Amino acid sequence: MTDPLIRRHRTADAAVTLTRGGVPLAGREVVVAQRDHAFLFGCTGFEFIPLANGDDPEPERAERLADLWAGLFNFATLPFYWAGFEPVRGRPDTARLSAAARWFADRGCLVKGHPLAWHTETAPWLLDLPNADIAREQAARIRREVRDFSGLIDMWDVVNEVVIMPIFDKYDNGLTRICREMGRIPMVRMVVDAARETAPGATLLLNDFDMSAAYECLIEGVLEAGVKIDALGLQSHMHQGYWGEERTRDVLDRFARYGLPIHFTETTILSGHLMPADIEDLNDYQIPEWPSTPEGEARQADEVVRHYTTLLSHPSVEAVTYWGLQDGGWLGAPGGFVRADGTPKPSYEALHGLVKGEWWVPPTTTATDAEGRIRFSGFLGEYEVAVEGETATFRLEEPGAADVHVAL
Amino acid sequence: MTDPLIRRHRTADAAVTLTRGGVPLAGREVVVAQRDHAFLFGCTGFEFIPLANGDDPEPERAERLADLWAGLFNFATLPFYWAGFEPVRGRPDTARLSAAARWFADRGCLVKGHPLAWHTETAPWLLDLPNADIAREQAARIRREVRDFSGLIDMWDVVNEVVIMPIFDKYDNGLTRICREMGRIPMVRMVVDAARETAPGATLLLNDFDMSAAYECLIEGVLEAGVKIDALGLQSHMHQGYWGEERTRDVLDRFARYGLPIHFTETTILSGHLMPADIEDLNDYQIPEWPSTPEGEARQADEVVRHYTTLLSHPSVEAVTYWGLQDGGWLGAPGGFVRADGTPKPSYEALHGLVKGEWWVPPTTTATDAEGRIRFSGFLGEYEVAVEGETATFRLEEPGAADVHVAL
Repeated sequence: MTDPLIRRHRTADAAVTLTRGGVPLAGREVVVAQRDHAFLFGCTGFEFIPLANGDDPEPERAERLADLWAGLFNFATLPFYWAGFEPVRGRPDTARLSAAARWFADRGCLVKGHPLAWHTETAPWLLDLPNADIAREQAARIRREVRDFSGLIDMWDVVNEVVIMPIFDKYDNGLTRICREMGRIPMVRMVVDAARETAPGATLLLNDFDMSAAYECLIEGVLEAGVKIDALGLQSHMHQGYWGEERTRDVLDRFARYGLPIHFTETTILSGHLMPADIEDLNDYQIPEWPSTPEGEARQADEVVRHYTTLLSHPSVEAVTYWGLQDGGWLGAPGGFVRADGTPKPSYEALHGLVKGEWWVPPTTTATDAEGRIRFSGFLGEYEVAVEGETATFRLEEPGAADVHVAL
Repeated sequence: MTDPLIRRHRTADAAVTLTRGGVPLAGREVVVAQRDHAFLFGCTGFEFIPLANGDDPEPERAERLADLWAGLFNFATLPFYWAGFEPVRGRPDTARLSAAARWFADRGCLVKGHPLAWHTETAPWLLDLPNADIAREQAARIRREVRDFSGLIDMWDVVNEVVIMPIFDKYDNGLTRICREMGRIPMVRMVVDAARETAPGATLLLNDFDMSAAYECLIEGVLEAGVKIDALGLQSHMHQGYWGEERTRDVLDRFARYGLPIHFTETTILSGHLMPADIEDLNDYQIPEWPSTPEGEARQADEVVRHYTTLLSHPSVEAVTYWGLQDGGWLGAPGGFVRADGTPKPSYEALHGLVKGEWWVPPTTTATDAEGRIRFSGFLGEYEVAVEGETATFRLEEPGAADVHVAL
C-alpha cells in the first residue's frame, strides 16, 4: 500500500486512448511499462569520471558499479569544486567533465553541476589576488562553466553554504574574503546573475547545510532583493543520526513556505556507528576505519525507506541526491548503498524495492476497452506502450486524473 | 590604569579655555567635574512606574532603590509589551507610562520604549482578527505610541526577535501569524516604516536574542531591502553563564560589520547557580527559589567588570542595558546588582567603581594657565566647570584631542 500522500502528490490515474489513423484500437492486448520517473532520484557520479573518459584502471568493477547506480538513479551530480577543476589558473578540467556529463546524458540521466561558488575547495590561487579580482574571477568562472557545459548541464548548485561563508574561520580563502566584504546577498546576486545571464533557461539553486532560521533569513533576504532562484537545495548529511520524520517534515514545512521547489541535494544515512553528537563540523571527525555493520545496515535500510517516503510525501520536493553510492567516500563513512567490496547493502535492495518496485509500473499486459482505452495508476514519469508490435511513449506529468491520447 | 582601547574609544584629551567677555581667565583656580556619560549605561526601569505615578505601596523602599539606580545609570528602558500596555483593546496605559518616562527624564535620563512589536506578550485580542487586521492594528499601535510619547521617548526597540517570530511554535499569537504570512523582511519594513513616518528623528532598533548567523542574515536582508535601522540591539541574558571576552568580541565583530551602532539591550549576569546548558528556551526553567550566593556574587562582580570593559573597548557599542537592578525579576533569577532585601551586591560596587570611579572625573581642583586653559583627560560626556563662583557646562563628544572654549 503506497502512502496516501505519495499517492496524491506523485501518481496519476491514467486513461490512455490508443488510436491508429484516428481509429481507436479497441479490444487489443497491450503491454504498458514505466520507463522513467519524473521525480529526480539522484546520486553523485564522481566515481564514473574515469570510466567515462576511458581511463578507469578497473573498468569491469566500475561497470558493475555503474549498473547498480543505474538501477536506482536518473539524476547525477558531478563535481565542479574549483580547487580540483582548475588547480592551475587557466587550465580547467572541462574535457573530462564534459565526457562524464555526456556519459550520464547518454544513459538518460539529468546532470547537475556542484558547486560553482564555495569557500571550501575554492581555487587556492585566489589568495594571491585583491578582492575585486577574486570577485571578477569567480563570476568569470561561472560564466565559463555554464557556457561550456550548456546543453549537457543546465542545472547548477550555483553557490554553496552562503550562511557560513563570510564568517568561516577555519582557514583563509578567497570566497570568505569577498563575501565578508560584499555581504551575503550581493554575493548571491553576483554569482546567480553570472549564471543567469549565460543560460537564462538553466535551473539555478542555492544550497546549504544550515537548516536553521539562518538559511530561512538568507533566502528571504535574497528573494526580497529580487534575485531569482529556481530551487532551494537542502543538505542532509546524517552522520550523527537519521533526522526522523518529524524533523524532516518541520524542515520541509519551513522551507516550502517560499513556494520554490526543494531539492534534497546531499543525503547521507550511515550503516555503521554514528558520529558523536558533539562534533560541530563533520570534517573534524577523522578515524582510520569506519566499518559498515550488519545491525547498522538493517537500520540504514529502514531509515532510507522512511526518509525517501517522507520526502516524496511532500509536494515541494522534486529531487533527492544521495551522497555516494559506495562506501569509502567523504570522511570514509559507511554511507553508501553498496559496500566497499561492491556488494549491495539491504538499503540498496530496500530503495530499489520502492523506486523500481512499489513506486514503479513494470511491463503489464492488459487489453483496451471498446473505446481503445486502458486505465491504470502509475507514478509520474515516462511510459511505453506496445500494441501489435508497435511501441509509443507518453508521459504522466501531473498528479490526479490524466487523459492521454497515443496515436500509433 | 584604564584599558588602552577604552581610553582610545571613550576618552578625550581636553584643552578647555575659559574666557569672560572675550578675555582668557588666566591663573584662576577652577573646579572641573563630570556630570554625565556620553555612553548609555542603561537599566530597566519597570519597577519605578508605581513610584512615578505616586501609588507605590512602599515609597521609601522604592526611593532607596531609585537612588541606587541613579548611582549607576543614565538610560532607562520602559515596558511597552502590548499585552500589558493595552490588555483591553482601545485602553492603552499611556498615562502611567508617560508619568514614568517623565520621571526618568526629570532625572536626566534618556528613555527607551521596549518593544513595539513582539510575538511574546502581544495583545491576546489579536487572535480574534483576520491577518490583514492584525497587521493594521500593529502598525496603528506603533504610530500611536511613537506619537503619544514623542519628546519623552524617542528611542524604540521597534521589533523584537524577528528571527524566531514566524516559526515560534509554543503557542498561537497574532504576530507569528502575520510574520509567517508576510515574511520577516516585509514585517520589519511595516513596523519600522510606521515608527519612522511618525517620528522621522527617532532612534529605531531591531532587537534579538539570536546571536547566530541567522540574525546576521536577517540584518543583511533588511538592509539590502532598504529599511533604515538606526542601531542593532543584541540581547545577552547570560543565565547559562558569562560569555567571556572571546565570544563577546566575536559577536561584536560579526555585528559591527554593518556599520551601525550596537546596543547591548538586555544583559543579565547571575550571582547564583547557573541554568543548565541544555535548556533552550530560558523561559522553560522555572524553579521555586533561585538564591544569590556569596561565591556567586563574587563571580558576578568579576564578570560584570569584564563584560562592561569588553563592551566599552569596542567602538561600535553605544549602550548597555542591564536587565533588572534588583533580584526577583524575570525567572526569579539572582541577576540583579541589588539583593531582594535592597542591599547592593559586590557587582553594584564593582560597576560603580568603573562608571563613577575609574571612568569618571570627580570634582577636581586645578588652575588655568596663562592662556586661561586647563587640560585633563576624561570620559566622553557632560562636564561642569566652576570658576570664581560661576559655573558653565561643556561636553566632550569625540575621542581624541578636544579643544573646548567656555565663555562665562
